[in-house]
Amino acid sequence: MSIIKLSHAPSIISGASVVGKKEYDGPLGTDFDIHDNDSTFGMDTWEKSESEMQRLAVNTSLAKAKLSPSDIEVIFAGDLMNQCTGSAYGALGFAKPYFGIYGACSTFAEGLAIASMMLGAGYYKKCAVVTSSHFCSAERQFRFPIEYGGQRPPTSQRTVTGAGAVILSLDGAGPFICDVMPGIPIDMGISDANNMGAAMAPAAINTFKRYFDETNTSPSDYDLILTGDLGMEGHSILCEIMGTKGYDMSKNYNDCGLMIYNCKTQDVHSGGSGCGCSATVFSSLILKKLLRHELNNVLFAATGALMSPDSIKQGMSIPGIAHLIHIKNERI
Amino acid sequence: MSIIKLSHAPSIISGASVVGKKEYDGPLGTDFDIHDNDSTFGMDTWEKSESEMQRLAVNTSLAKAKLSPSDIEVIFAGDLMNQCTGSAYGALGFAKPYFGIYGACSTFAEGLAIASMMLGAGYYKKCAVVTSSHFCSAERQFRFPIEYGGQRPPTSQRTVTGAGAVILSLDGAGPFICDVMPGIPIDMGISDANNMGAAMAPAAINTFKRYFDETNTSPSDYDLILTGDLGMEGHSILCEIMGTKGYDMSKNYNDCGLMIYNCKTQDVHSGGSGCGCSATVFSSLILKKLLRHELNNVLFAATGALMSPDSIKQGMSIPGIAHLIHIKNERI
Repeated sequence: MSIIKLSHAPSIISGASVVGKKEYDGPLGTDFDIHDNDSTFGMDTWEKSESEMQRLAVNTSLAKAKLSPSDIEVIFAGDLMNQCTGSAYGALGFAKPYFGIYGACSTFAEGLAIASMMLGAGYYKKCAVVTSSHFCSAERQFRFPIEYGGQRPPTSQRTVTGAGAVILSLDGAGPFICDVMPGIPIDMGISDANNMGAAMAPAAINTFKRYFDETNTSPSDYDLILTGDLGMEGHSILCEIMGTKGYDMSKNYNDCGLMIYNCKTQDVHSGGSGCGCSATVFSSLILKKLLRHELNNVLFAATGALMSPDSIKQGMSIPGIAHLIHIKNERI
Repeated sequence: MSIIKLSHAPSIISGASVVGKKEYDGPLGTDFDIHDNDSTFGMDTWEKSESEMQRLAVNTSLAKAKLSPSDIEVIFAGDLMNQCTGSAYGALGFAKPYFGIYGACSTFAEGLAIASMMLGAGYYKKCAVVTSSHFCSAERQFRFPIEYGGQRPPTSQRTVTGAGAVILSLDGAGPFICDVMPGIPIDMGISDANNMGAAMAPAAINTFKRYFDETNTSPSDYDLILTGDLGMEGHSILCEIMGTKGYDMSKNYNDCGLMIYNCKTQDVHSGGSGCGCSATVFSSLILKKLLRHELNNVLFAATGALMSPDSIKQGMSIPGIAHLIHIKNERI
């Protein structure tokens, strides 16, 4: 058994999302709490902008819960930047115990998993989980300088400019993180860094299949099944392969990377990606629907591609990972 | 209170260390399990060598405990490489749930902290914790290509080529991880990337002071107090500042970065550093002494500098962090 059941399921008491202009212009624009039209957030480098988004996301989620930074005991944070500096500098001002985590674009779910396990065990009563990505810091780190204006293939995805944070609490009226299933790194030999969806889909398939098998449930038992940023390519691979294994994902499965942009009109090719993608979509629209009881039983599996520009240049294929969180409005 | 007490303290049932030639030539050479004279470990890039060291360290620690990979339920791993690929590719072959963590050079202690909290809560029975660094992968990423032969200032430290792993188990006869104190990021304005000791010492001081205050203990209550890689500069800063606060660290305090090399003869300037430094020293000499009951009560605080080459270029100062683990041979 690799599902971790949380006998004392922590509650997601608030969440906040901070995004750039492109994300604000997308279908979920008004669901986000804060946006900045020039995506700098008042900073003089994109890297500092990313840290600032994390700080704003944590502070806004605290404010929504009528809490101050002194009410949380620990911060779990991650991002895509080299040495995870988006998180380190973002967390610095809170002066709280800090666990840095790295699961590429799966980091938000990894953070929710670790944090809910820690709260479920009674080590902490309240904590923050925050992750981020920034199109401009990611482009120059992973691909080309923005000014270069490189063309992208249709399977590529756009790194979301955004940070999402949630506050977890042992007290609270739900929604509850009832159980989690940590992901297993899966490498199916994909080595095209412009097709992350294909690299990550096998990990999501592995996680979902293990989850349905261990729980003896099927996709129709959930209100929504959500992946992080598989995009069009990965979403379609996942639906097809899960279908051949007897799991019908056609009814209630969506992907944050497809929800955050209008893929037809926003020139984002296969959709959104990045640590900020699933973090902002989850901590805005999804959390609102959970809090309004429009959703009551959700599987959320953020997906990550565990590569680096160097590993790609060295001819390595791309391992994917998908950490799964099961959220219910009813405490089990 | 920020100490996390583990009511069911997990046992460190085995450990293994894999190092390069320079580390093998140092004072702890014969304490390490595996070394490679050309530090490649049979791989064609330094980055792959680092992943291979992680794989070897986990497999060797499993073998020492007479376990196979199927006996562990989860792996906690981290390293210094961009996007933590040393760990991702190292863990891939084990096909186990995987939590990627990042705390710079504090990652081994962060991994021990998270893992022991997870085991202490009963989520898992057995797990592996592994971290690594490689002089050659780190040099070209953080500083200059090796071939450049750049000069270093006296306060600089040499990144250790090594990976250390331990197997934690809920069963076992000790040594036990009794409690942990997660670190708080501390930034005292140091911006010299060649003086990591000075950047990290304040975080270690913060952690130790909180720990002694909360436990109402003093340095003399422990057999050994060990930091990760403060080196000569950080070690001396820590001793001096702790002294002014009334804590005498002169008797039983040492630093893995000072232990792994002969700083006088091995041309390593201020000592060793890197995720592999504290991991290899802890999982070799320290663990052996704990298992032989030559040490029975140890505070181990690995220290990390949460910067990146980009954050330094952008003029940011360097936040440090120090996660503390308290290990006893007697179960509390």
